[in-house]
Amino acid sequence: MSTNDHAWMALALQLARKGLYSTHPNPRVGCVIVKDGELIGEGWHVRAGEPHAEVHALRQAGDRARGATAYVTLEPCSHHGRTPPCAEALVNAGVGRVVAAMQDPNPQVAGRGLERLRSAGIEVASGVLEAEARALNVGFIKRMETGLPYLRAKLAMSLDGRTAMASGESQWITGPAARAEVQRLRAQSSVVLTGADTVLMDNARLTVRAAELGLDEEMIALAIQRPPLRVLVDGKLRVPLDAPFFQAGPTLVASTRADLVDVYQSAGHELLTFAGDAGRVDLTGLLRQLAERGANEVLLEAGPRLAGAFAAQGLIDEYQLFVAAKFLGSSARPLLELPLDRMSEARELQIKDIRAVGDDWKVIAVPSN
Amino acid sequence: MSTNDHAWMALALQLARKGLYSTHPNPRVGCVIVKDGELIGEGWHVRAGEPHAEVHALRQAGDRARGATAYVTLEPCSHHGRTPPCAEALVNAGVGRVVAAMQDPNPQVAGRGLERLRSAGIEVASGVLEAEARALNVGFIKRMETGLPYLRAKLAMSLDGRTAMASGESQWITGPAARAEVQRLRAQSSVVLTGADTVLMDNARLTVRAAELGLDEEMIALAIQRPPLRVLVDGKLRVPLDAPFFQAGPTLVASTRADLVDVYQSAGHELLTFAGDAGRVDLTGLLRQLAERGANEVLLEAGPRLAGAFAAQGLIDEYQLFVAAKFLGSSARPLLELPLDRMSEARELQIKDIRAVGDDWKVIAVPSN
Repeated sequence: MSTNDHAWMALALQLARKGLYSTHPNPRVGCVIVKDGELIGEGWHVRAGEPHAEVHALRQAGDRARGATAYVTLEPCSHHGRTPPCAEALVNAGVGRVVAAMQDPNPQVAGRGLERLRSAGIEVASGVLEAEARALNVGFIKRMETGLPYLRAKLAMSLDGRTAMASGESQWITGPAARAEVQRLRAQSSVVLTGADTVLMDNARLTVRAAELGLDEEMIALAIQRPPLRVLVDGKLRVPLDAPFFQAGPTLVASTRADLVDVYQSAGHELLTFAGDAGRVDLTGLLRQLAERGANEVLLEAGPRLAGAFAAQGLIDEYQLFVAAKFLGSSARPLLELPLDRMSEARELQIKDIRAVGDDWKVIAVPSN
Repeated sequence: MSTNDHAWMALALQLARKGLYSTHPNPRVGCVIVKDGELIGEGWHVRAGEPHAEVHALRQAGDRARGATAYVTLEPCSHHGRTPPCAEALVNAGVGRVVAAMQDPNPQVAGRGLERLRSAGIEVASGVLEAEARALNVGFIKRMETGLPYLRAKLAMSLDGRTAMASGESQWITGPAARAEVQRLRAQSSVVLTGADTVLMDNARLTVRAAELGLDEEMIALAIQRPPLRVLVDGKLRVPLDAPFFQAGPTLVASTRADLVDVYQSAGHELLTFAGDAGRVDLTGLLRQLAERGANEVLLEAGPRLAGAFAAQGLIDEYQLFVAAKFLGSSARPLLELPLDRMSEARELQIKDIRAVGDDWKVIAVPSN
């Protein structure tokens, strides 16, 4: 791979990132078309049902695409979905070379798009800036490969690992910059997932609020048009339908009860039953159902009990810990209800990033295998 | 101040740092003597009773010191201590200019050394790289200004803020790089302070071990020759005299009991009584006593109860938190026994530094005022 290939792919990735808040359930994809060292077309996938990145870029390039190189952050699709296959479009446009950052993880497509290009005599390369491309679509990839969404747990904690006082008082542990970052995490997620404790305790609505996103107008508009589905785990249906969470728009409720489906439906909400062990909601079943509905990234914003249950079952892919520079003390609530007896049971993590967010710090950690 | 002044003072500070492990109870001081842009003498204070930095530097400079500029990281002393006053030595050597990083915080000296120089017709400046100079002698300065040592609390914790399992099992939360850094923290301290819980639970000796310091030979030799005093807070004298802590050498024990002074003395230890409220050891009284004995920096390595007591009384100046990338879970022990009820009681901190130490992270935080 040449340095140029990396530079053009970096540009394609930058375009792809513009879809961060809007492409659900599709992946974020960018494309640039280059001829004789000159950019002649660029595009990114905006939202499902609309043209793919390659189509935008090819339209811009027009006839000049003949013999050009196309850089795409994901293998061009070969199947007819809601739009015609992009591999075909690249062949028809007569491009001479296609460089993909990664193969499509979708079993319907994997490798076939590149194969189609090769069979038409187009030079094909794959794997340029692959790590960056995978990071951008970590949820889509996990869903395609496993049938489960990528689950991020967002937790706001003190430096001594506490999330609220014993009374439940928790507003605000972290500052406005951290809260804006949480807004963006919500906006990029397919689903924001919470539990009855959080909704009852904090009167949480878990909506995306345009004014708090801290994004430019174009991105705000895209984020607001495609809000995440808000999902409530409420095994015993403790949260009343007049709670702010329900008043803020339609939601999905995961419960062990099935008797009130109609009541929830009349109020504009969907009630699904996931009967698990010990009268608890089957969390894996819920996540699988969300993936079936196209959820790539799920943001878990829950109290220590529900977050602890997800952690105990090994369902959390990534922790986004917002750490405030304060101590809440030893009677305050834990980060996760996760009782362990011996050091050998400790949950090992890998810290991916630590950085300042306003007066707080954000730690991104993933479970070690 | 010229750029040159800063550069020469930076060199003097670098020399001063060589005394990090050995100058107790004196401050770390470095000196360089410069003439016509050329370094003609350098020195640093090695240990109490031996010549001060200025004397070493003047000896090296010899007759060339006449008319030269001396850079010292602390105002030259004007009083006769165990060595003759350095201000006098600089006057006698005929230096033309003296630049100090900071005034001496010792009330016996403050400003008088510089005054002595001025009255001899020497050009005097002060305040060059003062922040760096103060940081190097934070303990000495606090002791001189307040009669208390600078108390650093070292705590090893998991990312969820836990220091041990409920059983007390805690070895090892952090890795070898963090433990080597703790060794160096011990070695630079005048006192290593611990409690009965830690000594009983971990069989802790809290010694400085040459092989684990990770320093060069010269520094290791200096550190080993001047080990910190090990101090045990043991209100009820629960730790038996055959514990490894006592076997490792003479210690000071702070208790509420006074009846066994002779027994401890025969075993080579000193027992002091600090009767505080509610039958507890008077921690402020203990710290004041340590300062009277010349303790500049005290390293607190204790469990959540004792560390929590120091924190609750506002006695901790700095937290050195070694954070391991793991969760110990919600039944594990807290960072500090510090029960607080409301968010408004939260202890606000300022994070001074976060950096990787091997596989762990070190957070340095100080209480906000």
